[in-house]
Amino acid sequence: MIRLRRTPERILLPRGFSFSALAAGIKASGRPDLALVEASSGATAAALFTRNRVVAAPLEVGRASLLATGGRVRAVVVNSGNANCATGPGGRQACERICREAGKLLGVSAAEVFPSSTGIIGVPLPADKIIRKLPKLIAARTPSQRDVLAFAQAIMTTDTRPKIASARFEAASAKVALLGIAKGSGMIHPKLATMLVYLFTDVAASPRELQRLLRDACDQSLNSMSVDGGTSTNDTVLLLASGRSGTRVRDIRVRKKFADALHGICQSLAEQIVSDGEGVEHVIRLFVEQACSRDEALQVARAIAHSALVKTAWAGADPNWGRILAAVGASGIPVDPGRIKIFIGNQMVCGKGVSCSFDSERAHRDLAQPVCDVRVRLGRGANAVRFLTTDLTAEYIRINADYST
Amino acid sequence: MIRLRRTPERILLPRGFSFSALAAGIKASGRPDLALVEASSGATAAALFTRNRVVAAPLEVGRASLLATGGRVRAVVVNSGNANCATGPGGRQACERICREAGKLLGVSAAEVFPSSTGIIGVPLPADKIIRKLPKLIAARTPSQRDVLAFAQAIMTTDTRPKIASARFEAASAKVALLGIAKGSGMIHPKLATMLVYLFTDVAASPRELQRLLRDACDQSLNSMSVDGGTSTNDTVLLLASGRSGTRVRDIRVRKKFADALHGICQSLAEQIVSDGEGVEHVIRLFVEQACSRDEALQVARAIAHSALVKTAWAGADPNWGRILAAVGASGIPVDPGRIKIFIGNQMVCGKGVSCSFDSERAHRDLAQPVCDVRVRLGRGANAVRFLTTDLTAEYIRINADYST
Repeated sequence: MIRLRRTPERILLPRGFSFSALAAGIKASGRPDLALVEASSGATAAALFTRNRVVAAPLEVGRASLLATGGRVRAVVVNSGNANCATGPGGRQACERICREAGKLLGVSAAEVFPSSTGIIGVPLPADKIIRKLPKLIAARTPSQRDVLAFAQAIMTTDTRPKIASARFEAASAKVALLGIAKGSGMIHPKLATMLVYLFTDVAASPRELQRLLRDACDQSLNSMSVDGGTSTNDTVLLLASGRSGTRVRDIRVRKKFADALHGICQSLAEQIVSDGEGVEHVIRLFVEQACSRDEALQVARAIAHSALVKTAWAGADPNWGRILAAVGASGIPVDPGRIKIFIGNQMVCGKGVSCSFDSERAHRDLAQPVCDVRVRLGRGANAVRFLTTDLTAEYIRINADYST
Repeated sequence: MIRLRRTPERILLPRGFSFSALAAGIKASGRPDLALVEASSGATAAALFTRNRVVAAPLEVGRASLLATGGRVRAVVVNSGNANCATGPGGRQACERICREAGKLLGVSAAEVFPSSTGIIGVPLPADKIIRKLPKLIAARTPSQRDVLAFAQAIMTTDTRPKIASARFEAASAKVALLGIAKGSGMIHPKLATMLVYLFTDVAASPRELQRLLRDACDQSLNSMSVDGGTSTNDTVLLLASGRSGTRVRDIRVRKKFADALHGICQSLAEQIVSDGEGVEHVIRLFVEQACSRDEALQVARAIAHSALVKTAWAGADPNWGRILAAVGASGIPVDPGRIKIFIGNQMVCGKGVSCSFDSERAHRDLAQPVCDVRVRLGRGANAVRFLTTDLTAEYIRINADYST
């Protein structure tokens, strides 16, 4: 399997957060499917949600709660095995009941409990199973590496491995830690890929400061990747800051270091998600350069990353630059083909829109690696994006076409 | 294999057109790869070309020729086995040479010879091979069913069967015939799917009249389908009218019947193209209804038809309406999920954005048919589209991921 950056041996823990996980019987497999994070003295929060117009109940509830509390969170309750999406008013009520019960047990309002769900859609969430397990879940929480790993495992669906990244930096004579946990690109029947990302830090920051930092970090990482072009109904990125390091991001020296560390964490999680994508054999680091704007570069990157023809060529490690050129031409950006250059690995394979002599065996070998760089220069401007994407394999079809009655 | 409408046993021939085909050695297989149509007393013409910004040389030459002649064509020369795309100025010169030589042999200007190419991209077109065969190709032309079929076979790449549709109607006490020949959804290494469609009629019409009729007919057929979401660099639709029936489309009674017949031909060719798509096991007739506009309905249809998750579910005959709902939500149209209804076959599977009780075994059986209807009602307006699309199978991956050096 592909490992761009492994889950680190040692997980760095920000102060002020405890974790736990257990099996509540939502997954038919009996595997852990319920997870909790508690911020013992509360945390400021920022969040990003799916842009899909079809939005699961926990996202509606979570968004409303963040508004109601002004961006404060005491606990996060996540279940896997059921997405609580397309479940109507009953789905929202189920979600609210869980938050209320967890809030009661923790002595806080329901709005301070942030909910997430991932798994099957269109099936009522078994809220009672979850509520029954809340006392045990809360009692078991610890600020330990072991329970961070248990949390990361309990939120998995068809992910083959947990996704964790952590970092620490020193600024203004204090140490600040960051921890990220994610799941992604996995599905269960009848399934949708969902990306859930939880980020924790002990820096002190207002919800407004966190929101800006989160958006910037995600734009260049979690928002610049694609496995199959799908946008889930449940995608959520949540950033919590306990403030327990005593260091504030308002301090410009801290903010710069924090932003770098947060971007590093998000980038690592993005790489872990993409390389664990369903059926993925090859990860492509796609660089679109010389665009008039970042948005334009992103539009071209998405057109390439969503082309079934390009992705199947990558599955065969086929240095077929014609398909890439055609995808760029169909991107909606008024490119001039005569200015386009395409590189596979470090070889130019297409210059000024026409073939150039290159070692096709070497290009084939480069594409056959677990990770390969593909570079497209548009010759239009000075903006660029780095975009993570994958091949499209028969295994992807197998995972997603299986029909089980 | 799937056959929505078979190529008819009897091909109806519009007066004024002769056909021929032979092998010029462009395809490595040695199969026929060069085809000609001649309009013995010329024809008025209309054409539609790919919207890809990367455009093959014959499309640039053909477009310029139609402008130069004011929409008159004497002959069409098509080769398969090489797309003459991304071949630079040399590609254009090769194309112009072929038109000039064919024009000389027919006693007309180069601009009256319309060129097409399909096949490998980025490789110089072997123009000499083609030019050497032109005298034989021209001498062999006949107005016969046999040579229509030979033409249809010679323009194939990985198509598994020729695609032909014809029709006849009576109006203003004359008989008018229409004939359509297409190739599509096939590729050769290193390949791009290209759709080429040639339409012939003996009605009399100005280029301007033909252009409007062609655009209307294509909007609801050839422009409302998708196999893999790709837009080829060589897509071309050409309509030629010989006028030899003596009947004019200016006559409103003729125009109405002609428009209907042309739409029928284009629809039949669209169905033949989609059902012969690479690796296609199931054709889906997708109806998107209750949209605010036709464009809106088309945008939703494309979002569904381009979703890898939806298409893989169809490959498994899986009645997974959640994926369809999520694709609609991600289409960019501000839908209200609470108003969306989804039907598979004639069963409602999702009402008001939530699951409704349905016979999932029956839905599975419906989707397992060669052709199945899927209907999505948006609850926003009164506009609809009918869109032809397909599943995404492991066979598609196999065809397109094979790397051969």
